Amino acid sequence: MTGHSDIDIARAATKAPIQQIGASLGIPHEALLPFGHDKAKISAEFIKGLAARPDGRLILVTAINPTPAGEGKTTTTVGLGDGLKAIGKKAAICIREASLGPCFGMKGGAAGGGYAQVVPMEDINLHFTGDFHAITSAHNLLSAMIDNHIYWGNALGIDARRIVWRRVLDMNDRALRDVVTSLGGVANGFPRQTGFDITVASEVMAILCLSTDLADLQRRLGDIIVAYTRDKTAITARDIKADGAMTVLLQQAVQPNLVQTLEQTPAFVHGGPFANIAHGCNSVLATKTALKLADYVVTEAGFGADLGAEKFLNIKCRKAGLSPDCVVLVATIRALKMNGGVTKADLAAEDVDAVHAGCANLARHLENLNAFGVPVVVAINHFDGDSAAEVDAVQTRVTELGGEAILCRHWAEGSAGVTDLASRVAALADGGSANFTPLYPDEMSLLDKIETIAMRIYRADSVVVDDSVRRQLAEWEEAGFGHLPVCMAKTQYSFTTDPTARGAPSGFTLPVREVRLSAGAGFVVVICGDIMTMPGLPRVPAAEAIGLNSDGFIEGLF
Amino acid sequence: MTGHSDIDIARAATKAPIQQIGASLGIPHEALLPFGHDKAKISAEFIKGLAARPDGRLILVTAINPTPAGEGKTTTTVGLGDGLKAIGKKAAICIREASLGPCFGMKGGAAGGGYAQVVPMEDINLHFTGDFHAITSAHNLLSAMIDNHIYWGNALGIDARRIVWRRVLDMNDRALRDVVTSLGGVANGFPRQTGFDITVASEVMAILCLSTDLADLQRRLGDIIVAYTRDKTAITARDIKADGAMTVLLQQAVQPNLVQTLEQTPAFVHGGPFANIAHGCNSVLATKTALKLADYVVTEAGFGADLGAEKFLNIKCRKAGLSPDCVVLVATIRALKMNGGVTKADLAAEDVDAVHAGCANLARHLENLNAFGVPVVVAINHFDGDSAAEVDAVQTRVTELGGEAILCRHWAEGSAGVTDLASRVAALADGGSANFTPLYPDEMSLLDKIETIAMRIYRADSVVVDDSVRRQLAEWEEAGFGHLPVCMAKTQYSFTTDPTARGAPSGFTLPVREVRLSAGAGFVVVICGDIMTMPGLPRVPAAEAIGLNSDGFIEGLF
Repeated sequence: MTGHSDIDIARAATKAPIQQIGASLGIPHEALLPFGHDKAKISAEFIKGLAARPDGRLILVTAINPTPAGEGKTTTTVGLGDGLKAIGKKAAICIREASLGPCFGMKGGAAGGGYAQVVPMEDINLHFTGDFHAITSAHNLLSAMIDNHIYWGNALGIDARRIVWRRVLDMNDRALRDVVTSLGGVANGFPRQTGFDITVASEVMAILCLSTDLADLQRRLGDIIVAYTRDKTAITARDIKADGAMTVLLQQAVQPNLVQTLEQTPAFVHGGPFANIAHGCNSVLATKTALKLADYVVTEAGFGADLGAEKFLNIKCRKAGLSPDCVVLVATIRALKMNGGVTKADLAAEDVDAVHAGCANLARHLENLNAFGVPVVVAINHFDGDSAAEVDAVQTRVTELGGEAILCRHWAEGSAGVTDLASRVAALADGGSANFTPLYPDEMSLLDKIETIAMRIYRADSVVVDDSVRRQLAEWEEAGFGHLPVCMAKTQYSFTTDPTARGAPSGFTLPVREVRLSAGAGFVVVICGDIMTMPGLPRVPAAEAIGLNSDGFIEGLF
Repeated sequence: MTGHSDIDIARAATKAPIQQIGASLGIPHEALLPFGHDKAKISAEFIKGLAARPDGRLILVTAINPTPAGEGKTTTTVGLGDGLKAIGKKAAICIREASLGPCFGMKGGAAGGGYAQVVPMEDINLHFTGDFHAITSAHNLLSAMIDNHIYWGNALGIDARRIVWRRVLDMNDRALRDVVTSLGGVANGFPRQTGFDITVASEVMAILCLSTDLADLQRRLGDIIVAYTRDKTAITARDIKADGAMTVLLQQAVQPNLVQTLEQTPAFVHGGPFANIAHGCNSVLATKTALKLADYVVTEAGFGADLGAEKFLNIKCRKAGLSPDCVVLVATIRALKMNGGVTKADLAAEDVDAVHAGCANLARHLENLNAFGVPVVVAINHFDGDSAAEVDAVQTRVTELGGEAILCRHWAEGSAGVTDLASRVAALADGGSANFTPLYPDEMSLLDKIETIAMRIYRADSVVVDDSVRRQLAEWEEAGFGHLPVCMAKTQYSFTTDPTARGAPSGFTLPVREVRLSAGAGFVVVICGDIMTMPGLPRVPAAEAIGLNSDGFIEGLF
C-alpha cells in the first residue's frame, strides 16, 4: 500500500462537532454527554425513551481466518458505513473500543485504516471516554472486597484455594500473570497465589457488553462467581455485597460512545471484550441504540467467522434478541494467498493458484455462515498489489459456490470505492430473505453445544474432553447453568487448534483443555489450546518510540 | 449540625453550563474540553497564551491539626471563594481531586460540605475526568517496562533487589501491599518481591502536580529513579525509554479541570498527591492558570499547617515561583476542644476551658505561619453547637496574640455567612504587606533542612537520624540532589510523631526512620513514623452500601 499513513489521513480530516453527528441521528444536545468536542456518550435516559421505535437493518461484517497479511475487517466495517451513507442511506457503524495496554507493545491501532477510519483515533486507542478504566476499577474493587472479607473473619467461609476472581490491569505486564499477594504479615491478610489479566479479559467487560440496562448490569455483576467454599458452594459478587458499588463505578461507562468516521458517518465505539475467552463484540446497548436511530447499522465481530461470527450469532444475537439482515465476509487476496500456502515474504508476487487454494478457507466460512439463514456477500478488500487475475479467481470461485464477491477500494478511496458493496448489502438487507436461526437450541447439553460447534463450524472429526471437564459441565448443568451458550476460546488463525494449519483443514480432533463459568456474562468458556489473558511486551516495546512531537501530536503510536 | 445532607444540597443545586463558568473567567468555548455538561478541561494551548497576563492574589487556606471532630478546610476554601464573589470580587478556588479508592472504604467525600460545596460531587469523588486513571496507567507502564527490560536481557544491568519503582492502583487493597511477581516459569520473568501503593502516592502524581507544562512534565518523568545497578548507579525512567509514552498517557490529564461551587464560583479541581510522602497540593498548572484568570484565588493545603502549609510554602511556592498574599488558618470550636483534651463523645457540652487549652495548638500554627512573612487571619468555622462564650474565648486569645479571628457560617449559610472573612482577606491580600520567604534556602544541607522544620515548625528538641540515613543524605548531596527541598512524612494529628499528642507538645524528639528520593518530583521524602501508602478496607466497607437508587442516583457514597 502506498499513500499517506493512517495517522496523517486521520489528522487531516475535518471532524464535525459531535453534537452535529448526534443531530444527524436525531439525538438532542442534552442527551449527549460530550468528552471534548469530538466524542460523546449517549445518555441512558434518552436510550430508554427509544424502546418503542422500529429497528433498522443489522449488517454483520466478519472475515476469513486472520493472517499476518491483514484482512481489514474494521476498515471494511467503516468503509461500508460510509458507502451506505454515500448512496443516501441513514447509516451508522458499531465497533469495539481498543485496549490501551497492547498499544505500548506492538505498534497498532484499532480504528480502521486509510480513508476508512474512525476518529479521533489517538483518543480511541488511549483513554477514550474512560470505559476500560471504569471496568478495571469495578473489577479490582470486587477483588479487594474478597480479600477484605477473608481478612475480617471470612464469614462466608470462602476457601482461599478456590478463589477464581483475579485482578486486572489494562497493561501488557507479564510479571503480573502469576503472583503471591498478602505477604508482609498479619496486617496484610492471608498470602495466596493469584494473578492479573488484561482488562479486556475481565468478565466485567463481557457483562458490560451484554447488559441491556443498569438493572440488568447490576443483576449480572451480582451473578459473578468469585470463589467457592470448601464444600464447593459458589460465592457470588452479590454475596460479597460488591454489585451495587460496581454498578455505580460503571454507571457512566455503560452508556454508548458516539464518534464519527472520516466521512462523518456516526460511529458507536463501545466495549471491547476478548474474542477468545469472551464473545468479542461491541456492546449490546450500542448496537440496539444504533438500530433505533439509523436505518442501516454495520457492526463487526472479532477474529475470523469461525470464532467471531459464531459468537456474535450464538451468544450476542441470541441473548439480546438481535437478528442480522445481512452478513459481509471480508477477504483479501493477500490473506487468501497465505491461506493457500504463500509466506508473508512472497506476498508481492502474483500467484493465482495460491489464491485458488486459499479460497478453501473462504468457502468453508461462506458455507458456515449460510447455515445461519442470513444472506451473505463476500467483500474483497483491495490492496494495491492485487492483480486482476487474482481478483477474478476469487470472484469466479465464489460465484461457483452460489455466492457473490464484490471488490472494494474504501481503504484508498473512501466511500467512493465501496458503493457497489453498499448497494448490494442494502438490497440484501431490505430483501427480507434473512431468517436467522442460531446453531443450537438453549436446551442442548453443554457438551453437545461444544460438539456442534466443533463439528459443524470447525469441521473437527471429534472432540476430546477429559473426565474432569465432563464432570464439571455436568455439575454446572445440575446447578442450572445448562441453558447457557458456550464461548469457544481457541486460536483465531485456524479452524483447528493449531495456528499454523491454514486453509480448510480436516481430519483433526478438538481437545478441550479447561472450562470456566462466566455466570454473570452468561456463558461457559471452553478453552482449547493455550489462551493468553495477560500479554507481555516485546523486546523493543512500541512505548520506547511513543512521544509527543514539538507540535504536541502523538508520534509512534500507529 | 442539622439540615439537609451534603448530597441533598448538592443535588438541589442549579448548575450553570460549564461553558458559562468558563466564560465568567474569559475562557472561550473552544478552549474548554467538556466532560459532560458540568466539567471541562482547560486546553494547554489556551493556558500557554496567558503567560503575559498579571497574576491575581493568592490566598492559602490551612488549618490547625486535624481531629475526628472535623475542621472544614475544604468547606472554608469553597465558602471563602463564594464569599469573595459575593462581595463583588472576581474569584476562583483551587482544590485537589479526590482519590476513588478510599470512597469505598470509609464513607466520605472531598468536595466541601453544607452550602459550601463543589459540584458535581459524585463525579469528583469517582472517575471525574480520568486524571487518576491516566496516572495509574503511566505509572504501571513504567513498571511493566522495567520488568520487561530485565526479561529481555537486562542490558542496563539493573539489580533486581534494588528496584524502587512499585506499581499503583486507585483502590484500598491491603493484599497488594507486599507481593511476589513473575511466578509461573520462564515466560513470566524473574520472580521478585515488590508491591502496590495507592495512586495518590505515586511519584507520577506529585510530578503532574508540580509540572509547569508538557516539556517540564516529560523532563521530570524522565528523571524518576526506578532502580539501581549493583554498583548503585541510578537507573531512570529515561534510561528505560518510558518518559515519552508516559507523557502521552498524561497529555490530557495535565490540563486543569474546571467545575463550579454551589454558588457558581469557578472551581479548579486538579491533582491530588498524598500530603505525607508528597506535598499534598493541587497542581501548579491549576493554581497558575487560576491566577491569570481571576483576581483572587483561594487554595488549600493538605492536613494541618505543620505539614500542609509548610509544604505548600517550602515546596510548591518555592518551586513554582508562587507567592501567597494572605493565609487563612481554619479552626473549629470542636477541634480546639479536642486539642484541649476533650474526647469526641463529650464534644457537645460547652467547655470554655478546653477551648482555651486547645488554643495552644492554634497559637503555635499562627506563630509558625507569621514567620513566612505573609499576613494570617484565623477563620472559626462555625458548627451548630458552638456557644458564644467558646467563640469569644478563641477570638480573645487570637487578639492577644496580635491576630484576628473571624466567625464564618458558610456551611449553613453559603456566601452570606462568610462575607466578613472575605472582606478582611481581600483587604489583607490587597494591602501589600506580604513578603513571602521560605523557611530555608536551597543551599542548606538536607539534614539541616530537616532539622529546621523539626525545630522551627514542630518545635522538637532534637532530631534522631540513623547513620545509614545520614550516609544516604550525603550520597544524594554528592550526586547533586542537595538543593532539593525536603518533604516530611509524619502523622497529621500532632506536631510530634505521636498521633495522640494533641495541643502544642514540647520536649520531644523527631525520629527519622527512612529517606526516599523523588528525583522527578524534586524533593527528598523524610519518613518519621509509620506511613501507610496502601490503605485497607474496614470490616464493613462503605462499598457494601453503595448503589444506585430507583431514580438512578448514587446512594451510600456520602
